[in-house]
Amino acid sequence: MPSDFISKRSSTLSPFYVMDILAQAKKLSQQGRTIYHMEVGEPDFATVECIVDAGIDALKQYKTHYTPATGIPELREAVAEYYERKFSVKIDPQRVVITPGASGALQLAMICLLDAGENVLLSDPGYPCNRNIAQVLAVESKTIPVSSLSNYQLDADLVARHWTDKTRAVMVATPSNPTGTLLPEDQLKELCQLVEQKNGRMIVDEIYQGLVYDADDYTALEISNECFVINSFSKYFGMTGWRIGWMVVPEFYIDAIDRIAQNIFLAPPTVSQYAALTALKESTQSVLDERRDEFKKRRDFLLPALERLGFAIAAKPQGAFYIYANCESFTDDSFTWVKQLLDEQGVALTPGIDFGSHLANKHCRFAYTQSLEILEQAVDKIDAFIQR
Amino acid sequence: MPSDFISKRSSTLSPFYVMDILAQAKKLSQQGRTIYHMEVGEPDFATVECIVDAGIDALKQYKTHYTPATGIPELREAVAEYYERKFSVKIDPQRVVITPGASGALQLAMICLLDAGENVLLSDPGYPCNRNIAQVLAVESKTIPVSSLSNYQLDADLVARHWTDKTRAVMVATPSNPTGTLLPEDQLKELCQLVEQKNGRMIVDEIYQGLVYDADDYTALEISNECFVINSFSKYFGMTGWRIGWMVVPEFYIDAIDRIAQNIFLAPPTVSQYAALTALKESTQSVLDERRDEFKKRRDFLLPALERLGFAIAAKPQGAFYIYANCESFTDDSFTWVKQLLDEQGVALTPGIDFGSHLANKHCRFAYTQSLEILEQAVDKIDAFIQR
Repeated sequence: MPSDFISKRSSTLSPFYVMDILAQAKKLSQQGRTIYHMEVGEPDFATVECIVDAGIDALKQYKTHYTPATGIPELREAVAEYYERKFSVKIDPQRVVITPGASGALQLAMICLLDAGENVLLSDPGYPCNRNIAQVLAVESKTIPVSSLSNYQLDADLVARHWTDKTRAVMVATPSNPTGTLLPEDQLKELCQLVEQKNGRMIVDEIYQGLVYDADDYTALEISNECFVINSFSKYFGMTGWRIGWMVVPEFYIDAIDRIAQNIFLAPPTVSQYAALTALKESTQSVLDERRDEFKKRRDFLLPALERLGFAIAAKPQGAFYIYANCESFTDDSFTWVKQLLDEQGVALTPGIDFGSHLANKHCRFAYTQSLEILEQAVDKIDAFIQR
Repeated sequence: MPSDFISKRSSTLSPFYVMDILAQAKKLSQQGRTIYHMEVGEPDFATVECIVDAGIDALKQYKTHYTPATGIPELREAVAEYYERKFSVKIDPQRVVITPGASGALQLAMICLLDAGENVLLSDPGYPCNRNIAQVLAVESKTIPVSSLSNYQLDADLVARHWTDKTRAVMVATPSNPTGTLLPEDQLKELCQLVEQKNGRMIVDEIYQGLVYDADDYTALEISNECFVINSFSKYFGMTGWRIGWMVVPEFYIDAIDRIAQNIFLAPPTVSQYAALTALKESTQSVLDERRDEFKKRRDFLLPALERLGFAIAAKPQGAFYIYANCESFTDDSFTWVKQLLDEQGVALTPGIDFGSHLANKHCRFAYTQSLEILEQAVDKIDAFIQR
């Protein structure tokens, strides 16, 4: 008889509760029910044609071998040029590391900065994979409750209060998942100063950059060259299945990151890198911006519609494609409520508990990764559920 | 002033010495010198046409979204069918996990089996990324010197002697990198029995499966359903840059592996998965086998040629595309020797030190990932270097 044991870091990994929702949605769908998918963190659009064509061209040219671990030089240069074009910041292309998705980038940053038993500070609510990646790397994630008082973001005061002698890094995301709020530039500036004083490092997740609706978009690189800045071709560039992202690292860490990447990935997918070159072209931007405008329209519909239904949305979501709504007028157990909503009306949401524990049972997340038409129908269904 | 600190697990990661060789080769090449690349662990062939065409078709159909974390069901089923066709073993497709390369698979296995401070047993010499992935996961790798007495592989006796109360897993590779030797079925059977007695788990790396020249190929799955069996589309299937592999896991671990994969990768690259479907087709096998036969021809030329030059090759390499040669008739510092060989004759090899420390300075690795014609020229160059 073999021994069925499992590491503690795996057995204690928190599940995604939305997986139960997905399984239930699939079952209902197989029974012929219409499902309104507002749980999905992936744009409904397929990758735009010119990017797909660039992928096809790369394959026709048999670009099928390994690339350098940190990516093809022309893509690293194109990313640097993109920052210059979009934000007027100059970045040495050597600081740009191409990664297998933003997940790969986050692994590199955490491995490079943290040893087992040390900790990284994160917001609650926040994207669950961040704390889970920390956990599988034997890093402790200290989650800090945030509210609309700080735009659902960390600030210098919160970080100062939660800093311990084992803290090495602070991670923020702007726009944030699940709240869609931005981290104001001043707030990030203060955070950077504090973290520098504490001899730590900032990790800034900008994977929803470009999907910003009311405010001016910015990058942490305008503030500091000493942050780890993570980005992705998945969201604004619409390349989810290609598994490609990037990270800009402080100069000191270039060699270390290269060596870690050589070991844990070997290299990012080759065809995705060539396709990404086209994603960054100025000529591609107008199509991508049209899609961003479509997301804005959806938010502009969904946000007031949810408020009218009685959801409380404490900080206006200004980016990404999520609304994190307080549903305590209807329930104090959002997970059960979300399951009932799906069962009765076919609307799938993500329960708050997937994003942390702070007031999680009073919240759920709406993703507007469906057409306006579907969102309108879904709102009617939710209305019917509430009125029942 | 920011604080330039780095985690211990990163700063103590051993470098790849072959990177110095590569840098030197690049410099010489830019000076117009001809370089004979025998250091490269990647087939020289591009991906075969029908697989590339399948990738193009997938893109034309806009297969650009995320897939499930463990891969598209049809590919998991195709892998299971492949085992049945090739080895007459029946595997539940649920046990097949599609991964971003074998590196991804190894990360999943180690995270699932080992906590920080526990250890995995590995052979020395062995593939360096295995111990480095362990290290970045805060897992200790205990390397065990092996020789031709055990086919440069671990055996039950060696493992029994090195087992500690912190040991959770034993990793073997057949065929092996750097030695190209196989792990005889009986030897693996004994290993599995011992590891089961010790309440540990076996991780079997079969990424060079299919590239076996004299012996009958087999899979650990013929022996046990309780091993973690890692495979890849990179080597026999020639899909290196696509970053796609797979792992067959014992039934008990299916859910845990799925959850870890969701967190650390989200999903393997989509287009690579569709292309891999064609790689597994029976109709593709003849082209892949022709390439395998070409590798065999190269080995059949290179092995006696190196022996004639005075290299000692203690265990006949029967698979992969490597020869691990003892060069102590020429040097007791193979790294310096390899650098001189490159400098004087333009032949690039990998020094033994990249694969461990056991007699590493007396060994170097030859990769026969170049045409016979180039290998012949390289052998003449090495001859001239030795005779100088």
